[in-house]
Amino acid sequence: MQAVSSLFSIRCFIFLALCLLTPGLTAFASDPAPEPPNVILIIGDGMDDVQVTIARNYLVGASGRLTLDSLPVRSTAQVLTVDEENPSLPVYVADSANSATSIATGIVTSRGRIGTRAGSDEDVVTILERAREKGLKTGLVATSSVTDATPASFAAHVKLRICADPANMIDVTYKGIALGGCPDDLISNGGPGSISEQLANSGVDVILGGGSVHFETPTESGEESVSDLARRNGFEVVTTGAELAALPPGKRVLGLFGESTLPVRTRGEGGRQAEKADPSLLNSVHWYLGSVELPEPMKCEPNPEYGETPSLKAMTDAALLQLGHENTNGFFLMVESASIDKQAHARNACGSIGELEQLNEALESALAFADKNPNTLILVTADHGHSAQIIPYESLFGQFGAPVFSLGHLVRLITPEGAGLSVNYATNDFIMEEHTGVQVPLIANEVGRDLVPGMVTQPEIYGLMLEHLGLGESE
Amino acid sequence: MQAVSSLFSIRCFIFLALCLLTPGLTAFASDPAPEPPNVILIIGDGMDDVQVTIARNYLVGASGRLTLDSLPVRSTAQVLTVDEENPSLPVYVADSANSATSIATGIVTSRGRIGTRAGSDEDVVTILERAREKGLKTGLVATSSVTDATPASFAAHVKLRICADPANMIDVTYKGIALGGCPDDLISNGGPGSISEQLANSGVDVILGGGSVHFETPTESGEESVSDLARRNGFEVVTTGAELAALPPGKRVLGLFGESTLPVRTRGEGGRQAEKADPSLLNSVHWYLGSVELPEPMKCEPNPEYGETPSLKAMTDAALLQLGHENTNGFFLMVESASIDKQAHARNACGSIGELEQLNEALESALAFADKNPNTLILVTADHGHSAQIIPYESLFGQFGAPVFSLGHLVRLITPEGAGLSVNYATNDFIMEEHTGVQVPLIANEVGRDLVPGMVTQPEIYGLMLEHLGLGESE
Repeated sequence: MQAVSSLFSIRCFIFLALCLLTPGLTAFASDPAPEPPNVILIIGDGMDDVQVTIARNYLVGASGRLTLDSLPVRSTAQVLTVDEENPSLPVYVADSANSATSIATGIVTSRGRIGTRAGSDEDVVTILERAREKGLKTGLVATSSVTDATPASFAAHVKLRICADPANMIDVTYKGIALGGCPDDLISNGGPGSISEQLANSGVDVILGGGSVHFETPTESGEESVSDLARRNGFEVVTTGAELAALPPGKRVLGLFGESTLPVRTRGEGGRQAEKADPSLLNSVHWYLGSVELPEPMKCEPNPEYGETPSLKAMTDAALLQLGHENTNGFFLMVESASIDKQAHARNACGSIGELEQLNEALESALAFADKNPNTLILVTADHGHSAQIIPYESLFGQFGAPVFSLGHLVRLITPEGAGLSVNYATNDFIMEEHTGVQVPLIANEVGRDLVPGMVTQPEIYGLMLEHLGLGESE
Repeated sequence: MQAVSSLFSIRCFIFLALCLLTPGLTAFASDPAPEPPNVILIIGDGMDDVQVTIARNYLVGASGRLTLDSLPVRSTAQVLTVDEENPSLPVYVADSANSATSIATGIVTSRGRIGTRAGSDEDVVTILERAREKGLKTGLVATSSVTDATPASFAAHVKLRICADPANMIDVTYKGIALGGCPDDLISNGGPGSISEQLANSGVDVILGGGSVHFETPTESGEESVSDLARRNGFEVVTTGAELAALPPGKRVLGLFGESTLPVRTRGEGGRQAEKADPSLLNSVHWYLGSVELPEPMKCEPNPEYGETPSLKAMTDAALLQLGHENTNGFFLMVESASIDKQAHARNACGSIGELEQLNEALESALAFADKNPNTLILVTADHGHSAQIIPYESLFGQFGAPVFSLGHLVRLITPEGAGLSVNYATNDFIMEEHTGVQVPLIANEVGRDLVPGMVTQPEIYGLMLEHLGLGESE
């Protein structure tokens, strides 16, 4: 015991000496950081673990690491949805509207809803609105129209996501099919108006993405266009990457770089998407007989329509420049790579890969910003799962002699490492694939270490962000 | 500055006082724990995030938490496979043999291989073998045959997983289809023999599961059965849960509770599995026309064949009793819920749900053990992804009027919370579904906090376990 005691005394002496000699270090360890708190929330639409694995295999090889793989804190998020008619009943597959509303507000709602409760249609305050109220700056960046479900859910409140502009509020149709509308949200009915009008009135500091068509329409009152309303509210409206890059810091910016969803970066060879296998006549008589012709293998190539579209990284850099400028209160920024989802709906694996690469690059910008602004929480997550699966390029049952193949649509990629990567889309046989109900990744930088547990429900992400921004408890 | 300095002095004084007054606490914080290190590795075969989400929704509800959700440390594992002919070429979908070999040995190999290298057929030492060499106890528990790919990869070395017993070493056939064999692994050719013989000779302390058929065959020399060989090597052979429960601690045990794979706990109503939708004649003319009849919704029910089969939890408890008994060196235990995979191959969502529940219960046993033995690292992971997807019970495109449905096989469950859960199997149209290439979950208890990074490749799991057991560096 004597030896043990003297060992402790030596230890305590060393502690004391270190404590006295390194006041700066001690201060760093025990004082709250003086920097304002920031949250950069990066959402890959439909970016489940399958999409991440496909992109990793293609972009950096099976043994490689994407930037998002390097983040130290990982969790998983259970997506929650409820039925519109009976909000106590769960629904196991979400859409981007209800899932983004969960992240933005902490509630669970029904498919198609933007910042409103299932059943009651009550508006629910969002993390962005709470941040703005407390004097933090706010921003929304997306590769979709800025009125699309994910960005809209952070700054707007309508019954249905389709109510993107004043011309789409009542009896909206798509190819002759009645999709409903948001009459109660009309300004003339005491509502907040369409999504584009709400964004123009929002006071958000930076809004960047596509969707100019929704701002060119007249406002509900018909006195001006929605973009003129935005200008009147102090927004600088820009429409090219060059204009965006030339903006001095400290501006309120509405950047609209395309009519609707921005063009994606990559596509399949010659624009090819997933195709169905072609079984022989004999095989159509019995599945064990005959043979099958699978889609020709291909590589991804640049999408010629991408042109001068500003990248998600360029938009993120611009947003961070505006939001970080002389900011003593901190900010909330949501960055969405939207077309991981849209390209998966369209069975275009190469499209999703390129848009996940865009997300990864935007994350690099966020990490560089956080390096200089250490009180910046970075969260990377998805809103819901999607249809794609990686199936064997050569079936596990190849030895059985039968032509074993998927009845869905298949993309067979030859990756840069020279191997065959088969991506299967088979949730339906319709013109667009379905979402899926799998839990989705939630990843954080070191700032999230003690904040993010091993598993959350999606609405709990709202509470984590609220806590980091010091905006109080989740209700 | 004066105020700041005196603040530090007060702090340092408090530190010093605490340091002198709490020697026990200081010892706890800075000395290595005196307990021997244990690893409990729990593998859900085919247990990707989809399987976890399906099971969560069904067993505890969408907002509920499985025990595995409560673990604090989460990571994801990229599964790696290479081509047998050209081992420098990646393959993007694994089987259980090569992926379990990755976890067990830290190498990347080709599909079908057990503890051997692609191309060269070289045997590779496993974590279990390294642990045993250093005097740690070892155990293997599985709901499959104990000779099946996952348990075999930890204690055997053969070219192909099909070489389960001495009668299956040369020209193995399945329903007339030639599957190959392992002639070089024959004892008469200087090899280690079949998988069951290798297990009987392995010196593993506890082996529990199914597969008695592979131990009833004569050994290669024909002098005795493989189970007699095991007895001669000191194994107590038990065949019922009652015998297992009655064993005093400190035995070497081979428990074989069924001929092959153990019966699963749950099944679909009346044994129903996934079924195909039945489109109307009009719909078969054009996908936009007519209607479709989807499989009748159902619930899961107990599998009448399960009978007195010991649960995975009962086997895990028995293994922990044997391995933990008067053990000053620690142990390595692998526990596998094998039929999450096998039931997914067979398109039986209820079967997979019950087997994931079994894994969850075995994890509860592991956590209870770790509570009393705090130097126990618990890892929960999967070997590869699988075919199941959660698709919308009501299509996202229901408003379009067309009958939107999957061409694959569908299970429509009514969950205990009263909602519809659609599970789609559509990787092929064969008698068994394919594996998929998605990254898989890796979860750990608090002991894994500083050990497990946010993302690993599957072979790196070997290195993590090696490090915790103090068995040196991964090669």
